[in-house]
Amino acid sequence: MFENKSSRTELEALGEFGLIKHLTQFINLKNESSVKGVGDDAAVIDYKNKQTVISTDMLVEGVHFDLTYTPLKHLGYKSVTVNLSDIYSMNATPRQILVSIALSNRFSLEAIEELYSGITLACDRYGIDLVGGDTTTSQSGLVINVTAIGEADKKNIVYRDGAKESNLLCVSGDLGGAYVGLQLLEREKKIFKENPGVQPDLEGNDYILERQLKPEARKDLPLIFEGLEITPTAMIDISDGLASEILHICTQSGVGCNLYEEKIPIDPMTFNRAREFNLDPTTCALNGGEDYELLFTVDISHYEKIKDNPDISIIGHISDKNSGCNLVSKSGTVHPLKAQGWDALLKK
Amino acid sequence: MFENKSSRTELEALGEFGLIKHLTQFINLKNESSVKGVGDDAAVIDYKNKQTVISTDMLVEGVHFDLTYTPLKHLGYKSVTVNLSDIYSMNATPRQILVSIALSNRFSLEAIEELYSGITLACDRYGIDLVGGDTTTSQSGLVINVTAIGEADKKNIVYRDGAKESNLLCVSGDLGGAYVGLQLLEREKKIFKENPGVQPDLEGNDYILERQLKPEARKDLPLIFEGLEITPTAMIDISDGLASEILHICTQSGVGCNLYEEKIPIDPMTFNRAREFNLDPTTCALNGGEDYELLFTVDISHYEKIKDNPDISIIGHISDKNSGCNLVSKSGTVHPLKAQGWDALLKK
Repeated sequence: MFENKSSRTELEALGEFGLIKHLTQFINLKNESSVKGVGDDAAVIDYKNKQTVISTDMLVEGVHFDLTYTPLKHLGYKSVTVNLSDIYSMNATPRQILVSIALSNRFSLEAIEELYSGITLACDRYGIDLVGGDTTTSQSGLVINVTAIGEADKKNIVYRDGAKESNLLCVSGDLGGAYVGLQLLEREKKIFKENPGVQPDLEGNDYILERQLKPEARKDLPLIFEGLEITPTAMIDISDGLASEILHICTQSGVGCNLYEEKIPIDPMTFNRAREFNLDPTTCALNGGEDYELLFTVDISHYEKIKDNPDISIIGHISDKNSGCNLVSKSGTVHPLKAQGWDALLKK
Repeated sequence: MFENKSSRTELEALGEFGLIKHLTQFINLKNESSVKGVGDDAAVIDYKNKQTVISTDMLVEGVHFDLTYTPLKHLGYKSVTVNLSDIYSMNATPRQILVSIALSNRFSLEAIEELYSGITLACDRYGIDLVGGDTTTSQSGLVINVTAIGEADKKNIVYRDGAKESNLLCVSGDLGGAYVGLQLLEREKKIFKENPGVQPDLEGNDYILERQLKPEARKDLPLIFEGLEITPTAMIDISDGLASEILHICTQSGVGCNLYEEKIPIDPMTFNRAREFNLDPTTCALNGGEDYELLFTVDISHYEKIKDNPDISIIGHISDKNSGCNLVSKSGTVHPLKAQGWDALLKK
């Protein structure tokens, strides 16, 4: 759909070392902590007296992305930001990434450069150094594994297990957009397959398409917390859907919660397109996933500081474990909260 | 060939989170630096005043391993040790790993447990904590990505670019075994495919088979260096073959070298089996790869300390750049050293 076939250089012409050299030749290390980057057996990092925070994620073609409608540059960008999101959700600052890529020779050098340009764009925007990785062949699909490394003062790190009774349950940004964007792309793919002459009708849907194809990580949240002098008691990023993430926090913290449907932030475009697809916008927010917003709990004493913050919605509160995890619907009825989020192993 | 079909639990029965929980339930953190392991958005590591050393590697089915003759337990073990090898080759101590696995539902829970038992066995033997990872689906092949993290005092870290003129060129252990082991496995696979009734004839070849299927990382070398009060000037692990690694050191250090064929350590079993395959044992050592021995250079003043060490062979010396990188054959003729090692992108 978005393919560009202007030129093609075969990867065989470069070889593995040549490809790595070609792709990494313009890397300049930006962070003082990046002592040694690409080009040795391992990268060397020096955080002095900070703690190291580290996370890894694998993206597999046909499972996490569909190259029919995913531009490679966006894919590279997304593969970085979804990992940075894990570091921000620890209230830490990402500094370095390592990227492993497996690809078959159906990809040209130009295609890999596109992918790489998205990776380096994300590195530039987020102030990250690409310090290592691995480049190898696959027999069919494209696989990308990113490891993100960050730093934080011990006292600032926020885990999933610190939520306390009467804490406020909060979320950044708005939810459900990435999932509705995916539905739109899947619909246009289907139409395109049936009628290859028809151009995809994606106009006017930029927001939800970007939420799906080129999500940002909430780099600003740790800074907002710092400015407001707040340390969340628990935090997690929303990759599998709001419901699944709330249950993670409640299970690991040994608490219950009440989530108020009417408080869940949903963008008008997400809402309208969801309705056009006969989808319940709340369900999209609860179970759609891939929004990469941050879900967190804070002490109720911080209520005044956050209640009018445009980047934060208070969507519920933490209760005792015996009360369970509940969704209070717009009509006031109470349902047990269930995770029906994206489950990789059921998605066959 | 080595398959075990005693029982089979479908992965769908567990789901992604269930699988992760099942596999990681018995993990106990061993290292003081492992502050937080599996179970949050990211792992947290505290090396205090040491530097962090980090490396990542991807293993792809059909490219790096063949499940026809690779027991899953060995594969799990190897996927860890080949990464640890990168950390040891920086003269650092590995402490943690993160493991990402993509698998299709042709694998049962029992199969993944086998793979995982190899991973945890390697962790136990090398004193490593498994602190994070990702588990996802693939549409066909198995992909494993391991990120290894270690620590070192700044002054002890050894890079590839420090080799100096008149340094001794040394290698640990012996070379070529992993490659000859692979030839043996490939031969038996071919026979097995043509005559499924014939049992594979692998007896008496344990050493070279283990070199291929279940290689160890040279954990002892950094300790030997410490004991002898030696810091190598440059070091690299042998994954692509001796020739390729020597050229990496020489290129990055801006030097030349003379490598003496007669000094290259080759185990008698490797030598004999290579000859049976009509392979030149020296070529197997130079270009076979996957031996995971350490290649390093040391100041000539350390000659007395290492000349009789049973774990170390002095195989040549570093010269000036203009002399080039040369192989001095047993008959005394001099050839330019060429890397014809395993090149992932040419291996289609």
